[in-house]
Amino acid sequence: MADFMFVLKNFLLVSLAMNMCLIWKINYDDEETLSSKWSSWGNLQQKFHFHGSCFNGEKNNGRVEEAQVSSKRTEILATTSYVASTVVPDGGESVVINLDHGDPTMYENFWKQKGEKTTVVTSGWQHISYFSDVKNVCWFLEPELVTAVTRLHKVVGNAVMEGRHMVVGTGSSQLYQAAIFALSPHNASTPMNVVSAAPFYSSYPLMTDYLKSGLHKWAGDAHKFNKEEPYIELITSPNNPDGSSRQDVVRGHKGILIHDLAYYWPQYTPILSPPPDYDIMLFTVSKSTGHAGSRIGWALVKDREVAKKMTTFIEINTIGVSKDSQIRAAKILQAVSDSCDNDDDDDESFFDYSYKLMEKRWKKIREAVDKTRLFSLPDFSPETCSFSGRTFGQLPAFAWLKCEGDVDDCESFLRKNKIYTRGGKHFGASMKYVRISMLCRDSEFEVFTERLPTIVS
Amino acid sequence: MADFMFVLKNFLLVSLAMNMCLIWKINYDDEETLSSKWSSWGNLQQKFHFHGSCFNGEKNNGRVEEAQVSSKRTEILATTSYVASTVVPDGGESVVINLDHGDPTMYENFWKQKGEKTTVVTSGWQHISYFSDVKNVCWFLEPELVTAVTRLHKVVGNAVMEGRHMVVGTGSSQLYQAAIFALSPHNASTPMNVVSAAPFYSSYPLMTDYLKSGLHKWAGDAHKFNKEEPYIELITSPNNPDGSSRQDVVRGHKGILIHDLAYYWPQYTPILSPPPDYDIMLFTVSKSTGHAGSRIGWALVKDREVAKKMTTFIEINTIGVSKDSQIRAAKILQAVSDSCDNDDDDDESFFDYSYKLMEKRWKKIREAVDKTRLFSLPDFSPETCSFSGRTFGQLPAFAWLKCEGDVDDCESFLRKNKIYTRGGKHFGASMKYVRISMLCRDSEFEVFTERLPTIVS
Repeated sequence: MADFMFVLKNFLLVSLAMNMCLIWKINYDDEETLSSKWSSWGNLQQKFHFHGSCFNGEKNNGRVEEAQVSSKRTEILATTSYVASTVVPDGGESVVINLDHGDPTMYENFWKQKGEKTTVVTSGWQHISYFSDVKNVCWFLEPELVTAVTRLHKVVGNAVMEGRHMVVGTGSSQLYQAAIFALSPHNASTPMNVVSAAPFYSSYPLMTDYLKSGLHKWAGDAHKFNKEEPYIELITSPNNPDGSSRQDVVRGHKGILIHDLAYYWPQYTPILSPPPDYDIMLFTVSKSTGHAGSRIGWALVKDREVAKKMTTFIEINTIGVSKDSQIRAAKILQAVSDSCDNDDDDDESFFDYSYKLMEKRWKKIREAVDKTRLFSLPDFSPETCSFSGRTFGQLPAFAWLKCEGDVDDCESFLRKNKIYTRGGKHFGASMKYVRISMLCRDSEFEVFTERLPTIVS
Repeated sequence: MADFMFVLKNFLLVSLAMNMCLIWKINYDDEETLSSKWSSWGNLQQKFHFHGSCFNGEKNNGRVEEAQVSSKRTEILATTSYVASTVVPDGGESVVINLDHGDPTMYENFWKQKGEKTTVVTSGWQHISYFSDVKNVCWFLEPELVTAVTRLHKVVGNAVMEGRHMVVGTGSSQLYQAAIFALSPHNASTPMNVVSAAPFYSSYPLMTDYLKSGLHKWAGDAHKFNKEEPYIELITSPNNPDGSSRQDVVRGHKGILIHDLAYYWPQYTPILSPPPDYDIMLFTVSKSTGHAGSRIGWALVKDREVAKKMTTFIEINTIGVSKDSQIRAAKILQAVSDSCDNDDDDDESFFDYSYKLMEKRWKKIREAVDKTRLFSLPDFSPETCSFSGRTFGQLPAFAWLKCEGDVDDCESFLRKNKIYTRGGKHFGASMKYVRISMLCRDSEFEVFTERLPTIVS
C-alpha cells in the first residue's frame, strides 16, 4: 500500500508538472497570437477607415461606417472648382468636412502651372515586360526612377544615397510590409515584435497584423516595450500624426530600425545636416510631391540581403510595381529637381511653393485655434533648414489637435460639429487628441478654419 | 487514509484529464501552423523563381539561384532588335534560353503598329488623389477602366458583367490574395484550406503561405482534398501550366470557388457560350493584351460584401492601385474592342493577330517535338469559338512538355541543354513535366524550336 501510495504520489507530481508546462505553453501561444486577434474582421473594419475626400455631404447624422470609403452614403462634393465660401445644404445645416485622411490634393495647382514640363507620353508598346533592370537587386525598378530619386535626394540633402540599394514599392505601405517581411526571421518559433512610439501612424498595427502573420506581430508603443526579445522599431520622422522629430526609443541590443521619412521634405520640416544615413529609409511621392494616385514609394536599404528579401516580398505580393507610374514619378521628381536648380525667379521652385502654402495654412489654423479656448496645437522649436536656409519650426502635414477642458473624446466632439478627423486612440494615444489633414484643397481648408472658432462646447 | 487516497485518486484523475485536454489543444494548434512552416525563408527562396527575360547569357554552368531575378550573374541579351538567328557566345557554346516565366512580350509588334491610337498623355496635375470614385465599392477604381472592361467582356463574350462588382488590383496576384483574405473567416480557430487541382499555378501555394497567415493555408491538390472542413478551391481555366479547360473538382458543400480566367481569351482557347457566370472571376491585362508592366488586373465579384472585403485588403496592402496604369489599361482595352468592331480588313484586330501568332507557334513547337521521341505535348479537342467562329483546340500560353522515356527530371535535362523551364514539381506534378513559356519574342522562340529537335538523351 505504501509503495502504491508512493507511486501514486509520484505519478500525481509528474502529472501536475506536466499540467504546468502545458498551461504555460498554451498561455505563451495565446500571447503570441493575442495582438493579431484584435484584427478580426469586425475590429478590422472599425480600425481601418479610409473615408472619402475632404468634403462629405452625406445626410446620415449618425456615425459613418468606418471601414469603407466605398459606402453608398458617401457623397463627395469637393472638386477643383469648388468655391471656398459655398455652404452645401445638409438637411438645412452646414457641410460635412472630412479631414480624416491625408489625401494630398493641395499641390494640384502647382502642377497645373507646370503645364507640358511634367506631361508623360506613353506609347502602347512601351513598358510591356515585367522586367525593368535584371541586373539590379530590385529587377522591376525603372532606371529613370533611380536617376530621379538620386538627384532629388542630393539636391535636398535629406538622405544618403551612396552604398544604398533602392527598392520601389506600390506606395510606402507596401515597402513597410516588405521591410517587416525581410527583417523577421522565417524559422522563428514566435513572430517578431514590431513597435513604434505612440502616437504612431494608425495603419502600422493593421498592416502588421491583418493577415495574422506568424512572421511578425504588432507589439504596441515602443516606450512600453521591455521584453528581452528581438524587435523591429519604426521611427516616423517627422512623425505622423503629431509632426515631431523622432529618434528610436527602445535602444535594446536586439532591435532593428526602419525609418519612415515620408514627411522629411523641406515644406514640412527644416532639413538638417548631415543627411540621414539609416539602414532602411522609406519615402513616397504621395507626401513629397502629392502624387498619391500613382502609388510610388521607394526604400533606401543599406544591406543587400534585406533589399533582396524586400524585392522578393513585392515579387510575391504584386509581381513588381507599375512601370507607368514609375516613369511618371521619375518625370515629376526630375521636374522638382529642375525647379530647385532654376535661377529664374519667376519660376517658383516646388519646395518654395509648397513651403509657403504650409506656412500659410499653419498660420491660419493657429489663428483659428487661438480664437477659442477649446483647442490647442503642439509647438515646434525653430531650426535652420540646410536646404532653404530658412529658420522655422515644423509645418506638419497633419495637425495634432487637442481638445482642452472637459471634452474627453475630441473625435466625437468635432464630428458633432461636422468635422471628421481621426481620434487619438487610433494612434495609441489619448482620445483628447485628433489628427487633422492639412493637405486638402484650399477651398476645403478655408471652410474648416472658419468653422473651428465658431464651435462651442 | 482511505479518504486521502480517494482525494488523491480523484485529483490524479482530474489532472490526467487536464493533461489530455492540453495535449490535444497543443497538437491542434501545431496542426494549424504546419502548412505554413514549409514557407520558411530557405524554402521560400527555392519555391519562388522569377528569372530574367527569355535569353540569358550567364556564364555560370551550374543551377541558377531560383529566388532572385536580381542576381548579378543574370545577363539579359534579349531586346526588341535581337535577330532570331544570332547565336550569342556563352563560353564558346550556344546561348541560354530562359522560358521559365511567362513574360508576354510577343504582342509588342502589334502595339507598335497601332501607333498613336494607344498613346496615353498624362499631365502632371492629373490623377493626384488617392480616390477615383467614392461611390463605388472599390473606391480606387477608375470609371474609365470599368467602361473599357465592361465593353471588352461584352465584345468577347468571356464573362457576365451584369450584377457584378468590379475590383481592380495590382495584377491578378494581388486580387488572388485579396480574394482569399475576403473569403477566409477572420475569427476561425484554424486557417481556411486553399486547394487547386494539380498541376496548379506554381505561385498559388507561395502567395497563400508566404506570410504564415493564420487566415488561410495551402492545402494542396484539390483531387486529394477530403477533409470535412471549409475550403477555397481555385479553378484556373484554361489552366496554367497545362492549358486544359477546368471545372471545380472537390464539390464539397463547404467550398467557395475562385475562377482565375487570366487565359480565357480567344487567342488561347475557344470562347464558349454562354459566358462564365461564376461568383469570383479574375482577369489581367498581362495575359490578355500583354501589358504585364502595368500591373493591372480586375476581379468580377457577385457578392457585394466579398467585393468590399477585397477592396479593404487592397486598401491595407497598397492603398489602392496605380491610376496611371488604370487609365493606360483602359485605353489599351478600348483599342482592343475598337479593333474588333472595326470592319476595315487592313486593320487586323488584336485577337486575329494574337490568335494567328499563337497558332503559328503551336504549329512550330509541335513540329519540333514530332522530330524527336524524347518529348510529348498535350492534345486538345477542337471546339468552335463563339467569338471568332473558328474551330480549334487550345493554344495555351504555356507548353506543358513531357520528357518521355528514361528522363525523370525534365527541368534538369533541358537545363543541361541551356533551356530554362519550370519543372513539374513546382506545380504539384511529376518531374517528367516542364512548363515552357510560349509568350516571349519571335526571335527567342525561333532559337528554342530550332534547338529542341537537336537534343539527344
